[in-house]
Amino acid sequence: MREGTEAKEEVSWRSATDSPLLTDLYQFTMLHAYVEREMHGEAVFEFFVRRLPPRRNFLLAAGLEQLLDFLENARFSESEVAWLEAKGHAKGPLIQYLRGFKFAGDVYAVPEGTVVFADEPIVRVVAPLPQAQLVESRLVNLLNFQTIIATKAARSVLAAPERLLVDFGMRRAHGAEAALLAARAAFVAGFQGTATVLAGRVFDLPLYGTMAHSFVQAHGTEEEAFEAFARSQADNVVLLIDTYDTVRGAKKVVDLIPRLSESGIVVRAVRLDSGDLIALSKAVRSILDAGGAPEVRIFASGGLNEYELERIVMAGAPIDGFGIGTDLDVSTDAPSLDCAYKLQEYDGRARRKRSTGKATWPGRKQIFRRFRTDGTFGGDTIGLETESHADTGLMLPVMRQGRRLHSRESLCTIRERAQLSLASLPASLRSLSVRDEYPVVISANVRALAAEVDARMP
Amino acid sequence: MREGTEAKEEVSWRSATDSPLLTDLYQFTMLHAYVEREMHGEAVFEFFVRRLPPRRNFLLAAGLEQLLDFLENARFSESEVAWLEAKGHAKGPLIQYLRGFKFAGDVYAVPEGTVVFADEPIVRVVAPLPQAQLVESRLVNLLNFQTIIATKAARSVLAAPERLLVDFGMRRAHGAEAALLAARAAFVAGFQGTATVLAGRVFDLPLYGTMAHSFVQAHGTEEEAFEAFARSQADNVVLLIDTYDTVRGAKKVVDLIPRLSESGIVVRAVRLDSGDLIALSKAVRSILDAGGAPEVRIFASGGLNEYELERIVMAGAPIDGFGIGTDLDVSTDAPSLDCAYKLQEYDGRARRKRSTGKATWPGRKQIFRRFRTDGTFGGDTIGLETESHADTGLMLPVMRQGRRLHSRESLCTIRERAQLSLASLPASLRSLSVRDEYPVVISANVRALAAEVDARMP
Repeated sequence: MREGTEAKEEVSWRSATDSPLLTDLYQFTMLHAYVEREMHGEAVFEFFVRRLPPRRNFLLAAGLEQLLDFLENARFSESEVAWLEAKGHAKGPLIQYLRGFKFAGDVYAVPEGTVVFADEPIVRVVAPLPQAQLVESRLVNLLNFQTIIATKAARSVLAAPERLLVDFGMRRAHGAEAALLAARAAFVAGFQGTATVLAGRVFDLPLYGTMAHSFVQAHGTEEEAFEAFARSQADNVVLLIDTYDTVRGAKKVVDLIPRLSESGIVVRAVRLDSGDLIALSKAVRSILDAGGAPEVRIFASGGLNEYELERIVMAGAPIDGFGIGTDLDVSTDAPSLDCAYKLQEYDGRARRKRSTGKATWPGRKQIFRRFRTDGTFGGDTIGLETESHADTGLMLPVMRQGRRLHSRESLCTIRERAQLSLASLPASLRSLSVRDEYPVVISANVRALAAEVDARMP
Repeated sequence: MREGTEAKEEVSWRSATDSPLLTDLYQFTMLHAYVEREMHGEAVFEFFVRRLPPRRNFLLAAGLEQLLDFLENARFSESEVAWLEAKGHAKGPLIQYLRGFKFAGDVYAVPEGTVVFADEPIVRVVAPLPQAQLVESRLVNLLNFQTIIATKAARSVLAAPERLLVDFGMRRAHGAEAALLAARAAFVAGFQGTATVLAGRVFDLPLYGTMAHSFVQAHGTEEEAFEAFARSQADNVVLLIDTYDTVRGAKKVVDLIPRLSESGIVVRAVRLDSGDLIALSKAVRSILDAGGAPEVRIFASGGLNEYELERIVMAGAPIDGFGIGTDLDVSTDAPSLDCAYKLQEYDGRARRKRSTGKATWPGRKQIFRRFRTDGTFGGDTIGLETESHADTGLMLPVMRQGRRLHSRESLCTIRERAQLSLASLPASLRSLSVRDEYPVVISANVRALAAEVDARMP
């Protein structure tokens, strides 16, 4: 929010990211019944992914921090309640309930940066039914998106492990919040930074940037543009050389370097943004090396994704870093997850949905992960929270009665966890294109509970 | 923003949607050079789409209103400038420039809700070079997203023209802003409303909502849940009948209706959310009709998109309305556009980029659209703004020196324009799956200008 616009902001399109109005209307129709009938019993909801997208062998969990922010801060303003009432979306005892609304439940979660699989509970909310229900839409909205992006970014990290990877996706991200959270999720997964300035500020991420074609075009000649840019930067000079012709652009850089050296200016890298990056990077590398500039790095961008990175790296292209934009920030080949937030228990009794293709496992569940002697994942069991197990559970308590249990994790801590988790992936799951199924077993206790629920509700 | 959190918001992850820090770092590296060298000459940038996605025959332009909001409000706060300076992203004369930054340019645009095609300029910005450059990233971010969603939604409208269509996508939209703007864009394209409450508030959209599976599960039996829900709503009762078994759910509704009638409660509709919607809707329709409830409507949701809608409508399924979620809000089959914002003129001279596969047409351009006698589009010419033409140009002035020229258009006005524009689509472009190319011609004047620019910059 910008200064001096508070009054207007309240109802503008600009995202009120903690507003509990960030929800689906049916939450209010249900809350109306719950409050009227005093159904404030303890509800247990779990968030999980039903099936992995076709081209994903694993997911990297992300977005918990933003969810906890939302749960801690979600309150109805007086004008929001008045609006709900005026529109007929809330009435009677619900009005008073919303005025005093504050999420006061417990949350258990897999830490951000952990590899997870289908069916595994990622977040569990334990709260009075209306509270747990109201937060559903935003909870899914936050966890779904960052998990998608962290997973997509992790695949690029696997494809090009030793290269500099930078998020370039803001302009095609789906809005401002998507751009900010995508930059965060990519960093968590192992990217070195982002070009999105506001993301750099709010998450303290390293920022990367070069120059645009318009800069070259705005000058009389490409040579003039290169020199003007280099002299204005002095340090961190990266020249974009494909505006007219990449190979000729590289030659101009070689010609320019001695003149800049006299002024103590160092060209750090050139950027390629179009054409056959493998062939062009080899040609440009030769020109730079032959021209006495072996220290100048090559950075590439333009329509990249993990598949292109794999192809480029395999071909031995001499590219030192990549800017990955659109395909990262929208996760083109898997822009959503088949995920759900489902009631698993209410008022002390396990619950279960049996809709065709969407049946759920009831109860409060835990993920027990087995490790092989080489440190890689050996298989997971989804059991009941109360089961005793040789393997440690991945879900941990993170919020009690609406308050965070721990201080905010630093992004570097989460990023290190992600690196460790990715390093423990079995080799067969690391492929970008070959599908492999990681063994996830539903425990006998969970199956027995499901049968019990079915027997109760024939 | 929520009350009492102003100080914290400034640097939180919560979207500051008008912050000019919503940009790529390279804009600041370029601005540094521009400001230092006093390159404040008039720049002309145009936003356009290079190629339509594989499964799109047209685009529906949207997002202009939000762009104008951004351009009117974008200012650097003192703390933002201080941060840029502290991090070394701005220095010297740029600091003072940013403190006084205000977009003071002119904007020309195709009105929202207009059908457009590849290569056609959708928005033109005419402003001093640093201003026009700095706003690039957010401009693309806003126009790309809403145009994608309006286009996706328009395809559902074409597939199911007489049905109630409602946006159900918030939970899988990419963040809060995406959810809000997707609801807006879908309404523009002809949807009747959304389930996203905050979108209903900020854009004054009709809201729709029913009940979730968890409501049914939280009750002892489905019958009990149905009755509790109906009695708590009194009006607008829509019952979700697929939690356990859709056909049995429908029978329970028929059994319940007489009892509710005694209390004056009317069941308006049932909702199906899983399984074979064609077969189930026919079965449910029969049960309702045979049970004396022909007035109860059938609403369907669950993994829907325009392809499913077409299939369902063609099969004669008795479904009166659809909730369309994930595939709409992320535009699964085309989650981004190959769009660009390119310099077309600087300081009185036309400019052009020639990068492989990304060459642009120079100059200030206009779209001249020809209409057939039956009112349908007959073909477009992309000419220079100054060309005289029998057909009227689609781009109009919308902002002068940083100020809107017209008051805000109502969403209904934009929606009517979209309906008219979609009704004028040639029949061959209305297909969801068969690709057809609409004739768009580049005028001789534009081609001559391109040749002139190339001759100047060999």
